[in-house]
Amino acid sequence: MRLRNKPWAKDFIAQHPHLLIPQPKEVMGSWNSIFKNDNPIHIEVGTGKGQFILGMAEQNPDINYIGVELAESVVVAALQKTIESALPNVRLLNVNAEELPDIFKSGEVDRVYLNFSDPWPKKRHEKRRLTYRTFLETYERILPKNGEIHFKTDNQGLFEYSLTSLSAYGMLLAYISLDLHKSDFEGNVMTEYEEKFSAKGQRIYRVEAKYQN
Amino acid sequence: MRLRNKPWAKDFIAQHPHLLIPQPKEVMGSWNSIFKNDNPIHIEVGTGKGQFILGMAEQNPDINYIGVELAESVVVAALQKTIESALPNVRLLNVNAEELPDIFKSGEVDRVYLNFSDPWPKKRHEKRRLTYRTFLETYERILPKNGEIHFKTDNQGLFEYSLTSLSAYGMLLAYISLDLHKSDFEGNVMTEYEEKFSAKGQRIYRVEAKYQN
Ligand SMILES: C[S@@+](CC[C@H](N)C(=O)[O-])C[C@H]1O[C@@H](n2cnc3c(N)ncnc32)[C@H](O)[C@@H]1O
Ligand SMILES: C[S@@+](CC[C@H](N)C(=O)[O-])C[C@H]1O[C@@H](n2cnc3c(N)ncnc32)[C@H](O)[C@@H]1O
Repeated sequence: MRLRNKPWAKDFIAQHPHLLIPQPKEVMGSWNSIFKNDNPIHIEVGTGKGQFILGMAEQNPDINYIGVELAESVVVAALQKTIESALPNVRLLNVNAEELPDIFKSGEVDRVYLNFSDPWPKKRHEKRRLTYRTFLETYERILPKNGEIHFKTDNQGLFEYSLTSLSAYGMLLAYISLDLHKSDFEGNVMTEYEEKFSAKGQRIYRVEAKYQN
Repeated sequence: MRLRNKPWAKDFIAQHPHLLIPQPKEVMGSWNSIFKNDNPIHIEVGTGKGQFILGMAEQNPDINYIGVELAESVVVAALQKTIESALPNVRLLNVNAEELPDIFKSGEVDRVYLNFSDPWPKKRHEKRRLTYRTFLETYERILPKNGEIHFKTDNQGLFEYSLTSLSAYGMLLAYISLDLHKSDFEGNVMTEYEEKFSAKGQRIYRVEAKYQN
């Protein structure tokens, strides 16, 4: 992700509170009112420039999508694309995933997507990986019983780690693909990173994991 | 595996009842007496020509190994190598894995190895895969509580299937490697198939799965 400073970003974000929700903790328990319907809400954690959720939102008009992105300089690109798309079922949050349980009440989010999460390959950075145990606890707090995480990455080490971490958390692993683009998975929506890495010939790994709570 | 008829195989096998146990059901509950010690027993199901268990047996003199192989024409090659090796901690069985619970009492086998099991790629042959649910039940009946299966394969489809099947059975997945020969796994003993496929540049996949009973 480009991390260069974008001085206009703050202003631009402030001008679109309808799409990039400025005080999301105040919406806790009433996200349906934001979308003005009772459709399920799926979130992507680390949404980057938003290509995935916008593609998903277009493909699935009966699902509401929220992109969660920590970096202001990145989420602003997702905001621009969301405006251009004019899709009614997309919102964005510029927050750290750690804050999710203060933003959504239990069961308010129906599914969590993680795509091409930062690999943090060094063992001492394990806690920063979005599939680390404490993050799995965080997602569990906002999902319903038997909620699901859908995870894609090109990073072999992160995928090996994540399968192990999800299993150790007691989750059920399903639809494991070790080469997504050569599999029979239908309706795949590519992320920015997915386009970049698969164009280089990298395999894409994918898994769906279900909480057994 | 070569399946050509070996008319001398039956005779050769009959001449070595000490190494290839002819009536294994009669030994149930007293396998330690065969090895004349109380060391743990690890078995390989579908042992082929026995290169893996012989290598393991040499590396781990304090563990007893039993190679289980259905095909007579194949197990006979394992028998020849076992004789040559003169290792005291190896035995062979010419049986179908389905029979294991009639051969070992619960907890009598400490670990099950599956290496390069036949992939049976067609969905209608799923039940023949050695990581199918009924086989996982079979191994559970001879293993102790929290017993382990260690599985290696070059076959992507079988590995995807097996991770899913092991997880669906409620097993804990650990030490997942998606490219064993480039990983930091130490002391790997190659099987015949592993040598053949890795020489062709195929990745080797590996997982350790633990029963949660
Ligand atoms: C490698 S990018 C992938 C972006 C996008 N999902 C894709 O596949 O193209 C990972 C993104 O996750 C964001 N991120 C990392 N940790 C996060 C956290 N704790 N909360 C929210 N976003 C985070 C980063 O800022 C970065 O934009
Ligand atoms: C592809 S070979 C692999 C041999 C060896 N493990 C290796 O890695 O080189 C699979 C072997 O499993 C054996 N096998 C298949 N199903 C079996 C069963 N139900 N019980 C015992 N052996 C079986 C086959 O006869 C064959 O020799």
